[in-house]
Amino acid sequence: MEDTLSKLRSLMASHSPPLDALVVPSEDYHQSEYVSARDMRRQFVSGFTGSAGLALITKNEALLWTDGRYFLQAEQELSDQWKLMRIGEDPAVDTWMADNLPKEASIGVDPWCISIDTAQRWERAFAEKQQKLVQTTKNLVDEVWINRPPEEINAVIAHPLKFAGRSVADKLKDLRKKLLQEQARGIIFTALDEVAWLYNIRGSDVAYCPVVHAFAIVTSNSAFIYVDKRKVSAEVQTHLVENGIEIREYRAVSSDVTLLATDELDAISTDKRVNGEHQAQENKNDLIWADPGSCCYALYAKLNPDTVLLQQSPLALAKALKNSVEMDGLKKAHIRDGAAVVQYLVWLDKKMQDIYGASGYFLEKDSVKKEKHLQSGKLTEVTVSDQLEGFRASKEHFRGLSFPTISSVGPNAAIIHYSPKAETCAELDPDKIYLFDSGAQYLDGTTDITRTVHFGKPSAHEKACYTAVLKGHIALGNARFPNGTNGHALDILARIPLWKDGLDYRHGTGHGIGSYLNVHEGPHLISFRPHARNVPLQSSMTVTDEPGYYEDGEFGIRLENVLIIKEADTKFNFGDKGYLSFEHITWAPYQAKLIDLNRLNPDEINWLNSYHSTCRDILAPYLDEVENAWLKKATEPVAA
Amino acid sequence: MEDTLSKLRSLMASHSPPLDALVVPSEDYHQSEYVSARDMRRQFVSGFTGSAGLALITKNEALLWTDGRYFLQAEQELSDQWKLMRIGEDPAVDTWMADNLPKEASIGVDPWCISIDTAQRWERAFAEKQQKLVQTTKNLVDEVWINRPPEEINAVIAHPLKFAGRSVADKLKDLRKKLLQEQARGIIFTALDEVAWLYNIRGSDVAYCPVVHAFAIVTSNSAFIYVDKRKVSAEVQTHLVENGIEIREYRAVSSDVTLLATDELDAISTDKRVNGEHQAQENKNDLIWADPGSCCYALYAKLNPDTVLLQQSPLALAKALKNSVEMDGLKKAHIRDGAAVVQYLVWLDKKMQDIYGASGYFLEKDSVKKEKHLQSGKLTEVTVSDQLEGFRASKEHFRGLSFPTISSVGPNAAIIHYSPKAETCAELDPDKIYLFDSGAQYLDGTTDITRTVHFGKPSAHEKACYTAVLKGHIALGNARFPNGTNGHALDILARIPLWKDGLDYRHGTGHGIGSYLNVHEGPHLISFRPHARNVPLQSSMTVTDEPGYYEDGEFGIRLENVLIIKEADTKFNFGDKGYLSFEHITWAPYQAKLIDLNRLNPDEINWLNSYHSTCRDILAPYLDEVENAWLKKATEPVAA
Repeated sequence: MEDTLSKLRSLMASHSPPLDALVVPSEDYHQSEYVSARDMRRQFVSGFTGSAGLALITKNEALLWTDGRYFLQAEQELSDQWKLMRIGEDPAVDTWMADNLPKEASIGVDPWCISIDTAQRWERAFAEKQQKLVQTTKNLVDEVWINRPPEEINAVIAHPLKFAGRSVADKLKDLRKKLLQEQARGIIFTALDEVAWLYNIRGSDVAYCPVVHAFAIVTSNSAFIYVDKRKVSAEVQTHLVENGIEIREYRAVSSDVTLLATDELDAISTDKRVNGEHQAQENKNDLIWADPGSCCYALYAKLNPDTVLLQQSPLALAKALKNSVEMDGLKKAHIRDGAAVVQYLVWLDKKMQDIYGASGYFLEKDSVKKEKHLQSGKLTEVTVSDQLEGFRASKEHFRGLSFPTISSVGPNAAIIHYSPKAETCAELDPDKIYLFDSGAQYLDGTTDITRTVHFGKPSAHEKACYTAVLKGHIALGNARFPNGTNGHALDILARIPLWKDGLDYRHGTGHGIGSYLNVHEGPHLISFRPHARNVPLQSSMTVTDEPGYYEDGEFGIRLENVLIIKEADTKFNFGDKGYLSFEHITWAPYQAKLIDLNRLNPDEINWLNSYHSTCRDILAPYLDEVENAWLKKATEPVAA
Repeated sequence: MEDTLSKLRSLMASHSPPLDALVVPSEDYHQSEYVSARDMRRQFVSGFTGSAGLALITKNEALLWTDGRYFLQAEQELSDQWKLMRIGEDPAVDTWMADNLPKEASIGVDPWCISIDTAQRWERAFAEKQQKLVQTTKNLVDEVWINRPPEEINAVIAHPLKFAGRSVADKLKDLRKKLLQEQARGIIFTALDEVAWLYNIRGSDVAYCPVVHAFAIVTSNSAFIYVDKRKVSAEVQTHLVENGIEIREYRAVSSDVTLLATDELDAISTDKRVNGEHQAQENKNDLIWADPGSCCYALYAKLNPDTVLLQQSPLALAKALKNSVEMDGLKKAHIRDGAAVVQYLVWLDKKMQDIYGASGYFLEKDSVKKEKHLQSGKLTEVTVSDQLEGFRASKEHFRGLSFPTISSVGPNAAIIHYSPKAETCAELDPDKIYLFDSGAQYLDGTTDITRTVHFGKPSAHEKACYTAVLKGHIALGNARFPNGTNGHALDILARIPLWKDGLDYRHGTGHGIGSYLNVHEGPHLISFRPHARNVPLQSSMTVTDEPGYYEDGEFGIRLENVLIIKEADTKFNFGDKGYLSFEHITWAPYQAKLIDLNRLNPDEINWLNSYHSTCRDILAPYLDEVENAWLKKATEPVAA
């Protein structure tokens, strides 16, 4: 690491102009949350492996900003060369740079790795001391990264209509209507899931996200995809061309945005519809639309700022509103996924009893065997999560995991985004809480579920905390609310039962989830922070319901289901607003042993029994006799 | 009215420059919510008597904007000369003016009746069409208002320390610390309750609000009050002068702000501490602080915009954080007030049975007498509210009502801020819901309570609605939450039980309340709208808890208690944030007959029984035998 930092500092010194600081964000050229191994520049320089973070290297210091989910993990992973900056507690990165870097400092960043919004916010912060944001012409990290993983040529796949539910033609038609409405003649898409969704393609360029490294530009008359052509088979080429999409090399996006700016891009299209008889409707507008939250500063710099429409991409909402085929697929995928989770629990329950003498999922006793286990016999966070992946992999349409499985024992469960490593991870322990947060990519939908279990004797405190989390999870899931309500307003419902005891959690409560796409999807979210880009919850959106509680060094609890938002069948409709409610589509039991039933009110108990009853029925066809017997027991009705 | 409008239009035409439109806001020179009769200019021109609204007179149109509380009332009160503009549904007034008035239009307003914030927001809206906000040198409405009520000479009263809890000297000391912190050398106070609170004075210039028409200016060295000197007795003069306050004529504020701007104001002070040996600490700052939400544009116009600090007044929060004497006084005042409410209910219960043959507060039957009543025997919304005032007036420290009593039968209860008039108000009806929202000013505290009752046989629907409102009222009142939580976040707790059935209400859920001051007090509020001036709820603030439900043309329900925010005794303290909870200080029963007990969960029933039990004990010393027997019955424990 030290070597890397000094090499980078040499490059900073020899850069023109010399850089006082270099920013290394987590994001790739597409502002992705998850990035390919080759794009993990921030991880390479800092050693911190969490999904979110930003590194700043100055002449004498190295600092890493990350959020509450990762404080513990970052403390463990960062060497003493690095200083951890806690988002929400320490000064924000722009404030820190403005306050601590010298007057007229040059602060370098690869403009492909930073969004328009971020760059502009920083430039405003820098103005007072005449500091400059310098766009480096090369990525300095890539220069010093000797063993950087090579580019992979992963095939692009056409995503069939029977899973996508809407044709590319229909999606383009809606999009072009939006362009006209907003007086734009073209739009640039850089978010990988937006390109994949719009063109009904999928890929495997990024672990966990079935996307292709690609950009897109759509004008009123033409549509382009920028992708490494070696990834495009003849079949996929047909799919794209039939939909009027021009295939261009990945790097051509740069020069094509320049052509777009001067309205010369349509001219290069070879599509008949553009240059032939099928000329689309006239669009005399001159705005170019770019989403300031996802479009990189490098492309923005090629546009005329006076004719840029900086506004959230219309695909963010279009993609979030699932069509009936996607909704149906998501429900089916979640049933298969729930079956895999139950199979895993049955397997783990037996192993915990056999290997560790645990009393098991149902009984509440201390374990009887306390001796150490041989390497070969023992269960670790990683070996059990491999087993979970195995159960999922056996299911129809399985394509991989949707994010790195969080499989965590005792204190590790308090690390909100814990990611166990085979060499260092903990052994399972019948006397400790075990939390697993996991999901998969299926051709018909993406899943994400968290359950927290104990195979021995949980403490009264652990039960009280589990029950408070469950109460919040139920309260949010059972809410009904008028159209126009923002996820920010609902967030408190999941916290109130925890707050009653002075407990809380340092993360949001819900995110959208893709249809065989990213596991984290906007533009809505359920969060305690008001967020400028947040939009009201709407019918046919997906959203997770995942409150938690984390006691550092002790244990962590989280419960997560995916919900679909639908119109509520309310008795009245005050204000003619229309009311919404949630439908749970995740199916796996909550552990009755961890619930302090005296703390549940009758409505909560009824909900729990009804959920468990559906769980039993809906998963039965996917389970064998032993598994069904276990599930029947796990879903027995409870009473206060 | 027609006459008034045409006279105003003549004045607008002869104004220099001629006005295309004239704005007549509700507010007086102090941006008060309640104004003296002489300041009810908007009511005079429009005929609409609600407390909030804005009139706009153009060459051909007359429009009145008001909010959801007043839609029904405004429809009834406005003549067909006027068009009702519904806030939240119709375009906002600035948008409407910008869109509908001609290019370069001159829009007149009395700059004393409009805040800095509002004026600046309008000027921004007017910029595109080069429209101008013209400050009229006279108030045009006053010119045409022939029978305008005369100025009253109401005595200023010194508010004793045993009720105020803190001396003027202490308050000034804290204030001057704030001035230094914010690098200001002076501050202008225009809000009447801020002047009264800071100088420990009270008055009776505005109905319902024990305030004095006065401005204040405080610098590091001197303090001024601007008030009609005829109102100041020798005793009050002594109180003020002893506290180093210079008494100046009300109108002198205008020229004194000019002196303040050029730093010549201290020189005119006759107080020894300024010009003698007691010279206060040096303050070399040059900012003048004015609250843009309450300070009028007329005074702002006299300052140098470059050296104005536009920021919420420090007294807003200081006044909201009640000291222990104020808190103690508020609790005692609410107990006496609760006793008056119970006495009223006992009296009304008997009258409803005697006069109307109602089954009464406790029984649930149709009334037996249906004939019309003689004028002399009948109960009306106004005669019964007079009786309620009588019970309050008999209590120690009573000084008057804190707002016009809302006493409303059946459909009138759906008019959120209904104000019955003796000539037109409804008769009590044993078959209809009766809602009363009322409060009083006592020397030791201000009160505000709403109860909704039925003396006959409520419908199942009315009970379901009452129960949903009660559930929201309990949920909010029982919340615990970490420091830093905004009232906006808590608002949803009061709505969720209503939303479950597709019901809602079009008003906020809670406001602060003064200590023998205004019944509506900021800077915090519990509202579904995010509000820029809203601040987190803090220990020792007061706030109301008042959800409702209103069915136009049918009935209305509201339940309101005053709460005090205090530190919560939580078992844990996650994040070391400290947790807060509410203490109810309002005491009067909820009507068991209107509660559908099957819809309450055990926690809610326990809370209700416990509240009722305290109610019985705490009010007993203030009630006679008959009243105590009634209260015992009204507070019997209930079970599902």
